[in-house]
Amino acid sequence: DLHHQHSVGIIGAPFSKGQQRDGVQRGADLIRAAGLVQKLKGQGCVVKDYGNLTFEEVPNDEPIGRLKSPRAVGRANELLSGAVQKIKSDGNTCVMLGGDHSLAIGSIAGHAASRHELSVLWVDAHADINTPLTTPTGNIHGQPMSYLIHELHSKIPIIPNFSWLKPCVASKDIVYIGLRDVDPEEHYILKYLGIKTFSMTEVDRLGIANVMEQTCDHMFSKVKKPIHLSFDIDALDPSVSPATGTPVAGGLTYREGIYITEHICQTGLLSAVDIVEVNPKQGKTEDEITSTVNTAVDLLLGCFGRVREGSHEPDYKIPNP
Amino acid sequence: DLHHQHSVGIIGAPFSKGQQRDGVQRGADLIRAAGLVQKLKGQGCVVKDYGNLTFEEVPNDEPIGRLKSPRAVGRANELLSGAVQKIKSDGNTCVMLGGDHSLAIGSIAGHAASRHELSVLWVDAHADINTPLTTPTGNIHGQPMSYLIHELHSKIPIIPNFSWLKPCVASKDIVYIGLRDVDPEEHYILKYLGIKTFSMTEVDRLGIANVMEQTCDHMFSKVKKPIHLSFDIDALDPSVSPATGTPVAGGLTYREGIYITEHICQTGLLSAVDIVEVNPKQGKTEDEITSTVNTAVDLLLGCFGRVREGSHEPDYKIPNP
Amino acid sequence: DLHHQHSVGIIGAPFSKGQQRDGVQRGADLIRAAGLVQKLKGQGCVVKDYGNLTFEEVPNDEPIGRLKSPRAVGRANELLSGAVQKIKSDGNTCVMLGGDHSLAIGSIAGHAASRHELSVLWVDAHADINTPLTTPTGNIHGQPMSYLIHELHSKIPIIPNFSWLKPCVASKDIVYIGLRDVDPEEHYILKYLGIKTFSMTEVDRLGIANVMEQTCDHMFSKVKKPIHLSFDIDALDPSVSPATGTPVAGGLTYREGIYITEHICQTGLLSAVDIVEVNPKQGKTEDEITSTVNTAVDLLLGCFGRVREGSHEPDYKIPNP
Ligand SMILES: [Mn+2]
Ligand SMILES: [Mn+2]
Ligand SMILES: [Mn+2]
Ligand SMILES: [Mn+2]
Ligand SMILES: [Mn+2]
Ligand SMILES: [Mn+2]
Repeated sequence: DLHHQHSVGIIGAPFSKGQQRDGVQRGADLIRAAGLVQKLKGQGCVVKDYGNLTFEEVPNDEPIGRLKSPRAVGRANELLSGAVQKIKSDGNTCVMLGGDHSLAIGSIAGHAASRHELSVLWVDAHADINTPLTTPTGNIHGQPMSYLIHELHSKIPIIPNFSWLKPCVASKDIVYIGLRDVDPEEHYILKYLGIKTFSMTEVDRLGIANVMEQTCDHMFSKVKKPIHLSFDIDALDPSVSPATGTPVAGGLTYREGIYITEHICQTGLLSAVDIVEVNPKQGKTEDEITSTVNTAVDLLLGCFGRVREGSHEPDYKIPNP
Repeated sequence: DLHHQHSVGIIGAPFSKGQQRDGVQRGADLIRAAGLVQKLKGQGCVVKDYGNLTFEEVPNDEPIGRLKSPRAVGRANELLSGAVQKIKSDGNTCVMLGGDHSLAIGSIAGHAASRHELSVLWVDAHADINTPLTTPTGNIHGQPMSYLIHELHSKIPIIPNFSWLKPCVASKDIVYIGLRDVDPEEHYILKYLGIKTFSMTEVDRLGIANVMEQTCDHMFSKVKKPIHLSFDIDALDPSVSPATGTPVAGGLTYREGIYITEHICQTGLLSAVDIVEVNPKQGKTEDEITSTVNTAVDLLLGCFGRVREGSHEPDYKIPNP
Repeated sequence: DLHHQHSVGIIGAPFSKGQQRDGVQRGADLIRAAGLVQKLKGQGCVVKDYGNLTFEEVPNDEPIGRLKSPRAVGRANELLSGAVQKIKSDGNTCVMLGGDHSLAIGSIAGHAASRHELSVLWVDAHADINTPLTTPTGNIHGQPMSYLIHELHSKIPIIPNFSWLKPCVASKDIVYIGLRDVDPEEHYILKYLGIKTFSMTEVDRLGIANVMEQTCDHMFSKVKKPIHLSFDIDALDPSVSPATGTPVAGGLTYREGIYITEHICQTGLLSAVDIVEVNPKQGKTEDEITSTVNTAVDLLLGCFGRVREGSHEPDYKIPNP
């Protein structure tokens, strides 16, 4: 029902230490500057902007094994988790503007703290499910899922500033769309846990409409749980969203990205959404940055009621001359 | 049958007053310069170029309410309607090269004058069905359909230079493909009149082949009527046709556009086609202009027998050494 | 089975005389420089690089009729045929890096010499099936198939330096994907010989998954023969592979190209593959060249086991803390 009024709580997380490329911390404010709040209000949403989190420098954050900036990432996500819980308790659908994808740890943990059982739809070129011991790079933005999944708890070492975090998602409640750059270790984990995945090969084979049918069938097979949509902008093709840290050829089209958000919105179960990895410094031209940021905004508008067919107020009448 | 010989009458309408951006009046001659006539003849068409209409300045054309350049638009379309009637009475399929989309008023009215009952296939990012009283901008290129539809007659005020115009299309005979930027008032009108629409969401869901099957099923459900294809170049994605006044992200691909024209050509019922809103001044580079103009030409070639599989003369023999 | 170990023999053919644009002879070394050998080894292939063929100048190679550089093309392909036979007899899947598409003559002839009955999957915007007497340009890269097909033998005149060549492919064993620029004479020949074709119209209608199902059904309808995949980079859309001699709008997407190679790899029957028509001098910018070359590499990786879902070693275990 197009006129279910969405109340949206926005939290900005200008954080970049889950990876090595400067600039991703500027994503949140760029998305705001592109008119996110006005556009959401313009399509009937009630919007509260909770502003940006402030992340203090964490001194002596030496790598632990290969893990980079572990303490900063742990601390930032604890803060974020608290902010998300506040937004959820205020009765909003939470919108977390990244920052890098390590922030999904706090976003999903905070969401689960108030909601308990969640379905997670992870839209990304990457699976981001390395453990601290399998990660080839040590960048925690390539690992967030492993910290959150019950069945992987025994594989995650104790890490300073992560003691607040409890795993909160079951493998059966996760669906991936867009995969095309998966480490061997990650592929093993996905198969071992039996996680439902639609790589770009399946999207090519089935078409995005079938993929979304099967995604919702999978998520709602037993109990209809609130949905956490974690959308990494690099899920889309670099021709659409080039301004991002790890672009991979052959991504989702703009239309497929919008279709995903329209379909999820219609379930009425969207409870939180992350938009992460928008990095202006990775755009070679102004147009590349604008295309990436505008696409991020349009994805969010699709999450909150915008339909390409158009919509109108129920009581509208055509004026007579 | 590929060898049904098409006789094509071309009329250029270098008119821009249905909107505010200069340059759209140059579309017709650019499409000619890209070799439209030679290429149509090269694929077996008989082609007559009726040249460009000349539109005198209309003095004191003050806005009426929000309506901009009403008298100029009315006058231009009356002239165009006469030219289209001439082309149809000469036994041609009419090709109207715009100019902006307000010209569909004269093109469809002139076509209907000689053909009475028409099916209209409107391929566009926009519905262009605002009335003079619902238009948010006053630009008549966003309103042409409302002047033409029987069921909206009571909603259209008297406008100077429009007295020649009679509504001539029934809501049930209209199909839209490509919609993705529809005003609330327009959405109400489309639903109120029960007009068949395939927004980009339906194209993503069904695929262009199903969309064209359903489009033809709808148009031919009772009586097979001559088809008027009104093709706004902004129906296609800005990556394909950037040189246009109101580009909207997430449009039809080049292939989907060509597929539409190939499919319509095969019905044997195409009776008139408009190609509008090509505006070189909106192209940031020569390549952007060339891509837009060449795509417009290829769409027309698809309307008149060109098939990507290729074709050959029935009496062809392979030469022996 | 992802872990069937591919042994790959690479031969470079820096040859350009099948057409008129300089630069295509540099394709092979550019593809190597983009890391083809390391990447194939990285995904578990055994790789042997047989280096580049050397093509001596053929003096007094005057045109014969319209046929350009006939003696050079004949000589080059005889050499290539020998090299391909060597690679096949060493037990490898053969990878021929072009150079222009006239090289398919030697590549397929050499492959057939060691394998007898072949299926040929020709992925190309063009059919390349003109005979020396139907060719509008005289460029032999537009004719290779006609020299190879049994049923066209009587239509091919005697040409110096071609006496070594015997037709070796049956019309029923050929499938085309990607056609969108076919001469009338070629269309007649395709229909006359009843060759299975999927032009871009069929790809739009059916979707690439159905196209590949039907392609394999056709090739394996009676006997499962080894597959020769002849991939002209201009089969893909110029937005993906612009650096090529005869780009044609509306081509296969990057994803569709990769899907074709993934699907063919899974049959386990791929026996030889050509990647031709990569021409750096046709790239307007470095990015255009890089995109074309990287796509060629990714297509080859797809042929030899790379899957976008990812893969892992059978004996892999997740490390415990
Ligand atoms: Mn990613
Ligand atoms: Mn990610
Ligand atoms: Mn439009
Ligand atoms: Mn329009
Ligand atoms: Mn080609
Ligand atoms: Mn070719």
